[in-house]
Amino acid sequence: MVTNEVAVLMGSISDWSTMKLTCEQLENLGISYEKHVISAHRMPNELQEFGQNARMQGYKVIIAGAGGAAHLPGMIAANTTLPVIGVPIKTRTLNGVDSLLSIVQMPAGAPVATVSIGEAGAKNAAILAAQILAVTQLDMQEKLVAFKQMQRQESIESEARFD
Amino acid sequence: MVTNEVAVLMGSISDWSTMKLTCEQLENLGISYEKHVISAHRMPNELQEFGQNARMQGYKVIIAGAGGAAHLPGMIAANTTLPVIGVPIKTRTLNGVDSLLSIVQMPAGAPVATVSIGEAGAKNAAILAAQILAVTQLDMQEKLVAFKQMQRQESIESEARFD
Amino acid sequence: MVTNEVAVLMGSISDWSTMKLTCEQLENLGISYEKHVISAHRMPNELQEFGQNARMQGYKVIIAGAGGAAHLPGMIAANTTLPVIGVPIKTRTLNGVDSLLSIVQMPAGAPVATVSIGEAGAKNAAILAAQILAVTQLDMQEKLVAFKQMQRQESIESEARFD
Amino acid sequence: MVTNEVAVLMGSISDWSTMKLTCEQLENLGISYEKHVISAHRMPNELQEFGQNARMQGYKVIIAGAGGAAHLPGMIAANTTLPVIGVPIKTRTLNGVDSLLSIVQMPAGAPVATVSIGEAGAKNAAILAAQILAVTQLDMQEKLVAFKQMQRQESIESEARFD
Amino acid sequence: MVTNEVAVLMGSISDWSTMKLTCEQLENLGISYEKHVISAHRMPNELQEFGQNARMQGYKVIIAGAGGAAHLPGMIAANTTLPVIGVPIKTRTLNGVDSLLSIVQMPAGAPVATVSIGEAGAKNAAILAAQILAVTQLDMQEKLVAFKQMQRQESIESEARFD
Amino acid sequence: MVTNEVAVLMGSISDWSTMKLTCEQLENLGISYEKHVISAHRMPNELQEFGQNARMQGYKVIIAGAGGAAHLPGMIAANTTLPVIGVPIKTRTLNGVDSLLSIVQMPAGAPVATVSIGEAGAKNAAILAAQILAVTQLDMQEKLVAFKQMQRQESIESEARFD
Amino acid sequence: MVTNEVAVLMGSISDWSTMKLTCEQLENLGISYEKHVISAHRMPNELQEFGQNARMQGYKVIIAGAGGAAHLPGMIAANTTLPVIGVPIKTRTLNGVDSLLSIVQMPAGAPVATVSIGEAGAKNAAILAAQILAVTQLDMQEKLVAFKQMQRQESIESEARFD
Amino acid sequence: MVTNEVAVLMGSISDWSTMKLTCEQLENLGISYEKHVISAHRMPNELQEFGQNARMQGYKVIIAGAGGAAHLPGMIAANTTLPVIGVPIKTRTLNGVDSLLSIVQMPAGAPVATVSIGEAGAKNAAILAAQILAVTQLDMQEKLVAFKQMQRQESIESEARFD
Repeated sequence: MVTNEVAVLMGSISDWSTMKLTCEQLENLGISYEKHVISAHRMPNELQEFGQNARMQGYKVIIAGAGGAAHLPGMIAANTTLPVIGVPIKTRTLNGVDSLLSIVQMPAGAPVATVSIGEAGAKNAAILAAQILAVTQLDMQEKLVAFKQMQRQESIESEARFD
Repeated sequence: MVTNEVAVLMGSISDWSTMKLTCEQLENLGISYEKHVISAHRMPNELQEFGQNARMQGYKVIIAGAGGAAHLPGMIAANTTLPVIGVPIKTRTLNGVDSLLSIVQMPAGAPVATVSIGEAGAKNAAILAAQILAVTQLDMQEKLVAFKQMQRQESIESEARFD
Repeated sequence: MVTNEVAVLMGSISDWSTMKLTCEQLENLGISYEKHVISAHRMPNELQEFGQNARMQGYKVIIAGAGGAAHLPGMIAANTTLPVIGVPIKTRTLNGVDSLLSIVQMPAGAPVATVSIGEAGAKNAAILAAQILAVTQLDMQEKLVAFKQMQRQESIESEARFD
Repeated sequence: MVTNEVAVLMGSISDWSTMKLTCEQLENLGISYEKHVISAHRMPNELQEFGQNARMQGYKVIIAGAGGAAHLPGMIAANTTLPVIGVPIKTRTLNGVDSLLSIVQMPAGAPVATVSIGEAGAKNAAILAAQILAVTQLDMQEKLVAFKQMQRQESIESEARFD
Repeated sequence: MVTNEVAVLMGSISDWSTMKLTCEQLENLGISYEKHVISAHRMPNELQEFGQNARMQGYKVIIAGAGGAAHLPGMIAANTTLPVIGVPIKTRTLNGVDSLLSIVQMPAGAPVATVSIGEAGAKNAAILAAQILAVTQLDMQEKLVAFKQMQRQESIESEARFD
Repeated sequence: MVTNEVAVLMGSISDWSTMKLTCEQLENLGISYEKHVISAHRMPNELQEFGQNARMQGYKVIIAGAGGAAHLPGMIAANTTLPVIGVPIKTRTLNGVDSLLSIVQMPAGAPVATVSIGEAGAKNAAILAAQILAVTQLDMQEKLVAFKQMQRQESIESEARFD
Repeated sequence: MVTNEVAVLMGSISDWSTMKLTCEQLENLGISYEKHVISAHRMPNELQEFGQNARMQGYKVIIAGAGGAAHLPGMIAANTTLPVIGVPIKTRTLNGVDSLLSIVQMPAGAPVATVSIGEAGAKNAAILAAQILAVTQLDMQEKLVAFKQMQRQESIESEARFD
Repeated sequence: MVTNEVAVLMGSISDWSTMKLTCEQLENLGISYEKHVISAHRMPNELQEFGQNARMQGYKVIIAGAGGAAHLPGMIAANTTLPVIGVPIKTRTLNGVDSLLSIVQMPAGAPVATVSIGEAGAKNAAILAAQILAVTQLDMQEKLVAFKQMQRQESIESEARFD
């Protein structure tokens, strides 16, 4: 049995339009992952079980996106010692300020590695996961260096798009 | 065995200076209660167990105070169908705005009856619990009417304190 | 005469597009209700009369939605000892932050059980009302358990909608 | 019977430390006033009665200070056609942002003339009342012109306090 | 020469879509007015001159709408002892929070009677002006009572629009 | 007659505890300056006159600190074509958020070069003024390079203060 | 070799729709400029090099627009003693509040001359640059006086657009 | 040569009172680290050099605390592919909201793993670093499990402190 390195969780299927950017970025970096909907408020048993078995299952990093009260990332962090990356989903009423504060303001003892609100954060969650894996994976280090160089090149060349 | 009607939970012993106002108000209204520290992020198993057994234990209302990411009230609500009252504890950095948004912005399906930030909210949580019990307890209705009348009287008489 | 268990109030007919989600959810749960427009600022006499007669009329819970300065829930709470649930309506200028603070920040003595801003809150108000009724209504407890189970099932099955 | 021109109301005796600045300023300008504690949430009947009788009692302007949910100014405005000036009291948790939004964000139809949060607002409420009275009182116009000139002089002379 | 009772000022012609609601409401109440664009930042001389001559010109109330840094209402208030009503225009970036704070947070000595952000505030500015005029105008008092009664009736009848 | 290069204005003598940091920094950089209290709301004539004569008086840069509604920097900018640097003074109620938005959110046409809230901003205003003068003053360029180097050295050496 | 007086930098090509207003305004004022995309996070070497060589290259003022974490203006300021003007780009999630705070809240020692969020700020950045150049350029002073007069005229004439 | 696993950076020596909690927690977990003051705005060359050499130096994780504009964590992230953890330091004016937004709102491509504002965040940064190291270090996994268990025990036993 080969386990995926990263689990991508989201609190609701409506978060998928954001979180698929995480998945695309993971694919671009060649990182194995699986994705699940685990609602903190509708599936607390599944959340708990997932969190407590996550390391045993072989995951190395968990990425969790959630909006509003956004308890998913923090509650996963409460149930595992794996690094948990939280993506604050943009909300219709408060633009994701609620998601951000609910995810980032964790008490001492259970950190959530929080990234930016919405799509930029979704992409960054994948890159952060890659950086964590790259601590000991030499090939991932090389991929990240190449990715950084590609981004630099894209920015440099973007000047051609001045109209 | 006689169970207490209300359970007063808090995420940390440091919330006690606020939440004891809830307990004092419950006592004033003659409502039986017990109080517990259940940290959502340090004691997720205990939280889950408490929530899932709460109705069976005979509680009628749960009051939960928490600060910062403040997942306790919402996660209790995820695990029970009892009414859950959330008290946003004032925080040192964000004055409780983080607590408020983390508690009140629950997704459809799992409400938390949120009261005001800090001490006023702590007192109001007890009164709201009494109002819920009073839906079918005639004597509690009378106590609330008397309490309301007493408050009115106090406000009227407070004019004597103009200096 | 049989009275409805819940009164659904709103400050303006323009709040109806949000508050009808409350009514639909009440219907789904088989809770009898009636709905009224009572503007705190245009109909203060009607507000006062409604609040002061509410228990006598046989209502058990009052749900009040309002936006902006949003005095309706708090003023109903000032005039009754029934539990009052407040729904902060999303506003065009401040997205409902004004509604939320005006509703939730009640002083000690007159709580409003505040739910999330906008549509999620409107649905949750109905569920919270059901939870309050279920404190002593066994059949409502069963409905809520079934509802919770249905929600869980929906979330689990939503994974099929990954595109 | 000679009635006072201005009524100074406050939601709680604890607002007095702020609202006495209003009273001092009214005295400086020679405006007759009386002051009352009328809690919107504890004394709704008294509020309603006060508002509805205010014009008949001979008041010309009402100043109302309140904090948090701060319904007093708006509910007075709902019950009278007299101009109502609202003073947002600084609160311990949210610094008066809650008071400000609850007072200023009134719906179309019932304005509250809102001044700045806290002490500056308390003083300004008195000056605004004077400006309203001065619309037809020639002597009050002169007093305001003199007051403005005195303020200007004080500001100019304050340069002497550079250390 | 007969002067208009109210001057309606706005910082930019782009504020007109909001401020015409003020003008319509003034017309409904039969109040004479004139309207001007006076940009605080482009026409400071005109602003100063307008403010300093306003009482002499016979105006009784000034209404000023402005957005963003929104200095117009406060600077008019600095230059006159007439009551100045400020309307915070909704802005594209900050939704009028900037306008609100720039208008309402005046220092002690120069109040601006601030109303709600955007269209509701624009209408309320006219009503507040009427309330100020009604302090000594009996017919305006009657108009305001009738207006209040009409609003109440509209709200009551709006229930027919439940779909 | 030799004119000072920089004018340091403040809206109130109470701003002096912040703005003297500006003056000290100007002295450290050897920039000639003078300081004045010019209250936008109490001394509008003096403000206007100062602004309109500023270039003629020989000033090259104006620094203006103000708190709350904070109209001073923007109104000076409205009356001159000299560069105006605005320092948002920290306020007791809103911590200077009001000052910041009132100063920075200027409409197109009249910029205020806004620096950070409070003491850091006060120091930076002086440095920014020096940078503006240094556009054509070679010795000021050298002073700024030396200052930057000194700051760097201080930061490097500050590690010695780890306890 | 003749160098441009102003460098217009932006963190991303997506900022161009805002920053081209800066360029248009610079052209209107006859100021020579060049524009570049320099992403602080993708091109840190280019940023550093640009900043450290800027004065030597002959630029007199740098304008930098950036959104979100928005480190570009501050990091340019860290690397040069030229005046740096920062334009906070409006962001999709937080409307530019994040950009504003990231740009304006610089620590003592490295000021960024911050202008308003979005399009107004983009235009004002050009005008502020002109004001800085005009400290010693007489013809630029005249252009700014003419520009101010033209703006005034436009505002005065805009009254014709009342519908 | 044995390199430390973690580098703890801070923007100013004044951040040390917060960041020493990071260091204490690292020590408790037996993680080798070193600490440095690297001001983004005063020591940009050192920052760049540190970031670009960090992986080669053998660090595995970088923790960076900063306040206000708080560019340090993001600029380190721009210069390395190591995981960077950002600690938003509480600020005197904005309580760390500015620090939080400046650190967390990174654009796609350069994530900063942001933790909560202030002391809780400082402790959590160390725990998150441990979690990252534990991805492949078995003994660190065990330490984290023990730490989690100890925290749980402390919370459970804290009930003894109810007074």
